[in-house]
Amino acid sequence: MSKDTHSKALEGLEEVKGVRIGQHTSVDELVVGLRGCAFGAGRLAKAVDIYEEMLVEETTKFIGIAGALVPAGMRPILADMIRERYVDVVVTTGANLVHDIIEALGEHHYMSSDAAASGGGAVVDDVLLRKQGIDRIYDVVVHDEAFAHLEDFLRTVFEQLDHKRYSIRELLTAIGENLSDRNSILRSAVDSDVPVFCPAIADSMIGLHAWIYKQAGALEVDAFDDTRELIDLFCEAKRTGAIILGGGVPKNFIFQSALIAPRKDGQEGLDYAIQITTKTPEDGSLSGATLEEAKSWGKIGENAKAVTVYCDATIALPIIVAAVRERMERIRINERPSKG
Amino acid sequence: MSKDTHSKALEGLEEVKGVRIGQHTSVDELVVGLRGCAFGAGRLAKAVDIYEEMLVEETTKFIGIAGALVPAGMRPILADMIRERYVDVVVTTGANLVHDIIEALGEHHYMSSDAAASGGGAVVDDVLLRKQGIDRIYDVVVHDEAFAHLEDFLRTVFEQLDHKRYSIRELLTAIGENLSDRNSILRSAVDSDVPVFCPAIADSMIGLHAWIYKQAGALEVDAFDDTRELIDLFCEAKRTGAIILGGGVPKNFIFQSALIAPRKDGQEGLDYAIQITTKTPEDGSLSGATLEEAKSWGKIGENAKAVTVYCDATIALPIIVAAVRERMERIRINERPSKG
Amino acid sequence: MSKDTHSKALEGLEEVKGVRIGQHTSVDELVVGLRGCAFGAGRLAKAVDIYEEMLVEETTKFIGIAGALVPAGMRPILADMIRERYVDVVVTTGANLVHDIIEALGEHHYMSSDAAASGGGAVVDDVLLRKQGIDRIYDVVVHDEAFAHLEDFLRTVFEQLDHKRYSIRELLTAIGENLSDRNSILRSAVDSDVPVFCPAIADSMIGLHAWIYKQAGALEVDAFDDTRELIDLFCEAKRTGAIILGGGVPKNFIFQSALIAPRKDGQEGLDYAIQITTKTPEDGSLSGATLEEAKSWGKIGENAKAVTVYCDATIALPIIVAAVRERMERIRINERPSKG
Amino acid sequence: MSKDTHSKALEGLEEVKGVRIGQHTSVDELVVGLRGCAFGAGRLAKAVDIYEEMLVEETTKFIGIAGALVPAGMRPILADMIRERYVDVVVTTGANLVHDIIEALGEHHYMSSDAAASGGGAVVDDVLLRKQGIDRIYDVVVHDEAFAHLEDFLRTVFEQLDHKRYSIRELLTAIGENLSDRNSILRSAVDSDVPVFCPAIADSMIGLHAWIYKQAGALEVDAFDDTRELIDLFCEAKRTGAIILGGGVPKNFIFQSALIAPRKDGQEGLDYAIQITTKTPEDGSLSGATLEEAKSWGKIGENAKAVTVYCDATIALPIIVAAVRERMERIRINERPSKG
Repeated sequence: MSKDTHSKALEGLEEVKGVRIGQHTSVDELVVGLRGCAFGAGRLAKAVDIYEEMLVEETTKFIGIAGALVPAGMRPILADMIRERYVDVVVTTGANLVHDIIEALGEHHYMSSDAAASGGGAVVDDVLLRKQGIDRIYDVVVHDEAFAHLEDFLRTVFEQLDHKRYSIRELLTAIGENLSDRNSILRSAVDSDVPVFCPAIADSMIGLHAWIYKQAGALEVDAFDDTRELIDLFCEAKRTGAIILGGGVPKNFIFQSALIAPRKDGQEGLDYAIQITTKTPEDGSLSGATLEEAKSWGKIGENAKAVTVYCDATIALPIIVAAVRERMERIRINERPSKG
Repeated sequence: MSKDTHSKALEGLEEVKGVRIGQHTSVDELVVGLRGCAFGAGRLAKAVDIYEEMLVEETTKFIGIAGALVPAGMRPILADMIRERYVDVVVTTGANLVHDIIEALGEHHYMSSDAAASGGGAVVDDVLLRKQGIDRIYDVVVHDEAFAHLEDFLRTVFEQLDHKRYSIRELLTAIGENLSDRNSILRSAVDSDVPVFCPAIADSMIGLHAWIYKQAGALEVDAFDDTRELIDLFCEAKRTGAIILGGGVPKNFIFQSALIAPRKDGQEGLDYAIQITTKTPEDGSLSGATLEEAKSWGKIGENAKAVTVYCDATIALPIIVAAVRERMERIRINERPSKG
Repeated sequence: MSKDTHSKALEGLEEVKGVRIGQHTSVDELVVGLRGCAFGAGRLAKAVDIYEEMLVEETTKFIGIAGALVPAGMRPILADMIRERYVDVVVTTGANLVHDIIEALGEHHYMSSDAAASGGGAVVDDVLLRKQGIDRIYDVVVHDEAFAHLEDFLRTVFEQLDHKRYSIRELLTAIGENLSDRNSILRSAVDSDVPVFCPAIADSMIGLHAWIYKQAGALEVDAFDDTRELIDLFCEAKRTGAIILGGGVPKNFIFQSALIAPRKDGQEGLDYAIQITTKTPEDGSLSGATLEEAKSWGKIGENAKAVTVYCDATIALPIIVAAVRERMERIRINERPSKG
Repeated sequence: MSKDTHSKALEGLEEVKGVRIGQHTSVDELVVGLRGCAFGAGRLAKAVDIYEEMLVEETTKFIGIAGALVPAGMRPILADMIRERYVDVVVTTGANLVHDIIEALGEHHYMSSDAAASGGGAVVDDVLLRKQGIDRIYDVVVHDEAFAHLEDFLRTVFEQLDHKRYSIRELLTAIGENLSDRNSILRSAVDSDVPVFCPAIADSMIGLHAWIYKQAGALEVDAFDDTRELIDLFCEAKRTGAIILGGGVPKNFIFQSALIAPRKDGQEGLDYAIQITTKTPEDGSLSGATLEEAKSWGKIGENAKAVTVYCDATIALPIIVAAVRERMERIRINERPSKG
């Protein structure tokens, strides 16, 4: 094969450009360096580029939060993202909200035995933990008492509610209004007018205590009432983007809404999508389903910019957010009118 | 180190007994052969032993179904398990019920391009599929028209409903009563008096069409009303066991109910648990959380028999069911009174 | 969209046919039932079909063995596969051969603490094990003394060697000739004239003891001398097939040889390939690389029949072998000339 | 349970401290922020702390490189680590060296079709690539011509060799001496006096061309001769540490040597170990084996500092190196004698 054929077959492809690390590197400098790399590195860099575009363009940004990100320490990042409107709509699991409230009430999560770090996940004695009233989430633990505290708080909130019918989103807003911790996801959402959806709320301690309260008190929460609000958010959006952390119900609920919401411009599906997951597609589960697959459904638009970063979200999320903040700060400074 | 010390350190441990394959082996003969093996093989064998004990002892058996098991062809197995009371309570995702109804209405799922089998997941052109009205789930496809059929059916069901308030479980029973396919999960559940729970039903086409119907018609579905029924099932049980396929909301909902339901005998948590999952625990997500971890919460009892099989459920489930059926049939024959 | 369009878009695709489990099912009956299923189930069934064709057609069958399959109890299956020429050439890691020899010497592997089964991998105290002279491989343990026994045996073997230069394959044959256990991989290979290759033998206790022996005695083992023999096996084959268990060096060595060996028929690459792995392709590692990717290199032929089963090999291998044996036995019976 | 009991059970545990992202964050500032987090984030931070200690203390640092890190763009990072003695000994696969040489010869790797980024791994047509002479490694491609170039180069190197017997390490040094690219792993290793080991070199294009050369020319490479040099490196070390990227033969070869090398201080096993892998332990394979397990063998010392980061190495490695460089630069500046 001649050099010419060689060149022709590779035409239009970009060279892999190896990355080199400087002595004092900002997170975004590192990410920019990864742009020319393949595998996870290249995808991480692409995720930052897509997120930047979502922020620069007028995009309604949905975030799906699954996995125990709050117990792992990602809560302040998520709260800041809401507060500064790096995201506009939250869809999450009940568990993350339960742990958000627990921390807002002053309770803590604790690092479990150090031994887990060597690679094992269960070097602790879970039966002993049970006897001590300690509940484990991989290498994090929390005390039963935190849940007692949660119960008291929720009852107080439920007692204050008007006796009207609530959507799940409205119930979560009411809870958020009763929290005063700026680091709280629910409080930040109230302060920033960001709706929080949690379709599977029955599957959480919030749902359980709501049900207990209902046995004596009055509380009506309809299973389907959130749908309009979420669809309207899609219908009214100029552009739409999703950041999917970990799959599950939040991923599906965002994608389903994106699919059925009529758009002003006649287009369909999300314009941007970033997925951070450790689940791969081979067993057909939704959490590992590719964003390409979502295009066949119309959940993601034909020309959407989309990337999956196969990575623990506690690693990828802080990097992406740090890099994007750095870019937005740079843009802000450049846009500032010069004096004189 | 002397032989004596050698022996002492290994005291009480069982030898790994290698497995040998005969020329015509029943599934259970194979599984029994795997009992002396380690890694996934040993766990698979243990899962069958635990399931057998669940069936022989008087156990209320919960199954959590997540992942696209119906599109993958597991529907007849699941329907038979319900029909023959190999399981007594179902907790599932909305998606599996949607695809169950679609098949019950005579629509089909199809195998996608053969190329996927070599190991890639997306060798098809999803944008083209979109144009053809074909929706992809890994290596399975389904046509948009199946969903149109679903919509018509659900509207008919909703129109027939009394104007009372429904729990999600009751709504699913009403849907099942309108299906006539013996292979249907929902129909089998109606026929066998097995309750089907789906806490995240809003996150499915059933939820969407329920919401659309509500815009004009009357339909009240409370988000929390299922809780009592599920808890009662735990309270009334002599023993409880769970088969968890794939994690997600079904896993958590079963475990949460197991945790809070007061037991007659003062014990807490499930007595048996089998988990089949491809998700591992390292990123702290619920779907990969170990059953040991669940003991720290009291979701699984201190002395419970529990095993996790790290395997695609479309492989492990048929094997486990086939092996257990073989054992139950053997027990049935042995128990049959001899003539004369 | 009309029914006609609907039909057209799905033309040529096969329906997913759900599987149902009978009361006494042979392994192959189960596997045949999985043929119409998707995800892992369909791939497992396809692997059996491909293996059957490899056995029926005149195919030189290479097996790549990585992962601790011998400690896990897969040794008798592997030995039988060699002995009955279900495989014709073995490429493996040093570790599997070390553990094969240890068992052939009468030593055993033991199941570690039962607790591992609930899903954790490291509920044992590894520092304590160290003090007891016990070495752990996930949920299997082996005593240090077994390695002392190995050392004595290997020294005896090395002392008997002629002072000629050995290829690694020849050294392994010499070791096999000194074992008398019919369940041994190395002994079965000697008895059945199946060559065993182990390119990374230096990375094993066999390599280590060979090096120690060389300090005083004479032993020449060339790093590259196996290449011709392996390439010749490809060149002389009518058809070639590979069964890849777990990736690593054995996978690459088989694929590399398949790539460079000139074929009589001018074709290139393997005609059949079955890969059983738990590693997925997303991080670009060889063990997870798809068989499609191997076609771009010419390692697998353009029209090859190839399938990857994403599964723990201790689960998938026994099923595949049991199903294929059942088919071969059926063929054998049918081919038997009828009397009279 | 009283507050006192609550406090007691959690005694000595550290609170999870959520991370917050500033507007311009250096990589190490981010990593320090992750120290109080759980799951992957906490482990990543711990890896940096351990690496820093390895660099500050007098430690012989081994790196095991498996997985296609060179094609992915990690080559300059690895070369710099060698050049600046962030690592002292390299153990790698043949493939990484092949691709290192190819790039040193001026050939390139290219990013494959963008579509891979959405999450699928094989949206390209590998049979077409084959026809174009293009070889694929996940989302990277390289042209066949690069391998022709490699062949010419290796032949030239082999022709220059003295006709003495070589260890694999010596052969790799000879190759490195013939490369002039400062970004090359092999060249950097020569320049910095860092030995490169590759026990499975026969399983690579280097091995293949060495064998071809041997058919006519004289070249003796012993399979076991590297052992002494590697063991001596352990014996002479004051402290030892390993950075394991991706498992495989490099991991085992380092660990095996650590196990058998007698230490001056009578201790055994590595003092530090950092493992970056996407493989988890559940199927018993070495690449996913925990570092705890390695303690049972004595490969890692009882009191060693060890952490596994479950992450794509193309993401974790650049972060760890950037953070550690920042720390070392800070230490260097602080240690600089002030003027006057």
